[in-house]
Amino acid sequence: MLGEFDLIDRYFRDAAAHRDDVVLGVGDDGALLRPKAGFDLVMVTDTLVEGTHFKSGASPHSIGHRALAVNLSDLAAMGAKPAWALLALTLPATDESWLKEFASGFLDLARQYGLALVGGDTTRGPLSVTVQAIGYVPYGRGLRRSGARVDDVVLVSGTLGDAAAGLHDSNDYLSQRFDYPTPRIALGESLLDVASAAMDVSDGLLADLGKLTAASGVGATVTIDSLPLSKELLGERGRDEARRLALTGGDDYELLFTMPPARWEQWQRISTERSVADQSVAITPIGHIDAHQGLRMTLAGQPIDRTALGIVRSGWDHFKA
Amino acid sequence: MLGEFDLIDRYFRDAAAHRDDVVLGVGDDGALLRPKAGFDLVMVTDTLVEGTHFKSGASPHSIGHRALAVNLSDLAAMGAKPAWALLALTLPATDESWLKEFASGFLDLARQYGLALVGGDTTRGPLSVTVQAIGYVPYGRGLRRSGARVDDVVLVSGTLGDAAAGLHDSNDYLSQRFDYPTPRIALGESLLDVASAAMDVSDGLLADLGKLTAASGVGATVTIDSLPLSKELLGERGRDEARRLALTGGDDYELLFTMPPARWEQWQRISTERSVADQSVAITPIGHIDAHQGLRMTLAGQPIDRTALGIVRSGWDHFKA
Repeated sequence: MLGEFDLIDRYFRDAAAHRDDVVLGVGDDGALLRPKAGFDLVMVTDTLVEGTHFKSGASPHSIGHRALAVNLSDLAAMGAKPAWALLALTLPATDESWLKEFASGFLDLARQYGLALVGGDTTRGPLSVTVQAIGYVPYGRGLRRSGARVDDVVLVSGTLGDAAAGLHDSNDYLSQRFDYPTPRIALGESLLDVASAAMDVSDGLLADLGKLTAASGVGATVTIDSLPLSKELLGERGRDEARRLALTGGDDYELLFTMPPARWEQWQRISTERSVADQSVAITPIGHIDAHQGLRMTLAGQPIDRTALGIVRSGWDHFKA
Repeated sequence: MLGEFDLIDRYFRDAAAHRDDVVLGVGDDGALLRPKAGFDLVMVTDTLVEGTHFKSGASPHSIGHRALAVNLSDLAAMGAKPAWALLALTLPATDESWLKEFASGFLDLARQYGLALVGGDTTRGPLSVTVQAIGYVPYGRGLRRSGARVDDVVLVSGTLGDAAAGLHDSNDYLSQRFDYPTPRIALGESLLDVASAAMDVSDGLLADLGKLTAASGVGATVTIDSLPLSKELLGERGRDEARRLALTGGDDYELLFTMPPARWEQWQRISTERSVADQSVAITPIGHIDAHQGLRMTLAGQPIDRTALGIVRSGWDHFKA
């Protein structure tokens, strides 16, 4: 029987970042952690299941990266800085080379953000990975979905639709966007006291903006013309399909957030004055918040409905896309 | 597609305990938590997979209870008091009555310990449940596996072997011991500054004592005569098989711990003076720590080996037992 003792020990012990808020890491019944004063903790969990979230036979390095990245993206959406993670790994059999690659994908990303893997569990069963991550956010300042107000600008980082295309497309850029999402940690932190509401785009723009506006008790209008689309997506799929994927495709793990128009004006000035290295992802305004609940779309200044855009579902289901 | 938004909302929102260290619970990208000062945090995770940890068709109420209980048992082993949990639930399909029962089993136990369910994720795939739990332990005082010293008494709570028998036995008491393990939270807390080392018995006494002694750099001798066996286990299986199950069966979730002989004498006096309600589980000395690494056993004062006891494996594999 696979034991947490054997596997976690061999591939993960002492391999992630060392932190002085970790009293005791992998190897006991639990991890002992000493939270820093002056911060709230943000606690998130996400599961990736073979056949639902990744294809059978997918690169274990990518699975390791994504399993952590999707959790870090949730931390970014709250404005948190990553600190600790637990890894619960269910495997059909022990496969050393698979594990080694998986661990490498996971730990490469963990090191990049100074995150310590402090424990976990390995069990036998159908392949799936559940990660729990915890991060720090300054006391009382965590970002939420519920703060969007009428007239706020709706903004999104990066480009949308790439990951959904990348799942079925051999284009290197697009498939990398699916296999190696970038959690927008620095952006999330820079949104503290700036964004009125924030979340990450995991289920697709329309689905996620629907949740953000519902949580805030408002509605929104999206200007289709302004959706940020990569040249790779446009080249592979054409403008209409690119827009459909941007609206309904999931797994981009960009940040979706809102702020009052005056603050957006001010924030653009501040960001331009800072170095590009601090803020290397583009931010695009894609609409505005309004009082009427639900979502509306415009194209060339005219209202347009989902059917006219060829959208039959607003949700996102990888293997039926 | 099952969404965390729908399921977690419907069955779990506002249903666990309310706590003033939870700033924001279920419903956003993550939970916002405000740790109390003066404590370290203990963070644990455990997964239950259908076919590995419970039989297909097992009671969803029991699965809900066990998924949380096995994590609380890890907290107990560190001496921690439960505070928060996340639930990652993978289901082959939406089954409302299953979910309702599962949630009831989980939340009944959560309420008992004042634990708040602060978030989670629901995904589609083969049935499995991963829980992460976090508890408080007074600053710097968390129990570990690594503190056992030569001559320490080895102690165990409750009785051993019941759960392993209960998996294959129709006896109500024994099957309840498998389906509804009791995390020894109060006992764990009472061991702070008392036990030199502690862990929970999840893989079987020999396997787990092997880990405790290895972590402490010592060995141990177990007196087979003194193993605590329930009258139900003895009645159903007879003395020899009961002893084998006590040594190798897993899933009892009792606490295994050590302390110096003088402290054990003192602790027995203190415990007897306290009310039974504070400490309602029996504690049994089952051996002692010695300098020679590895585990030894005695019966009627004579050394005895595993083969003579009919033990062919020291590990524990539910569906081959």
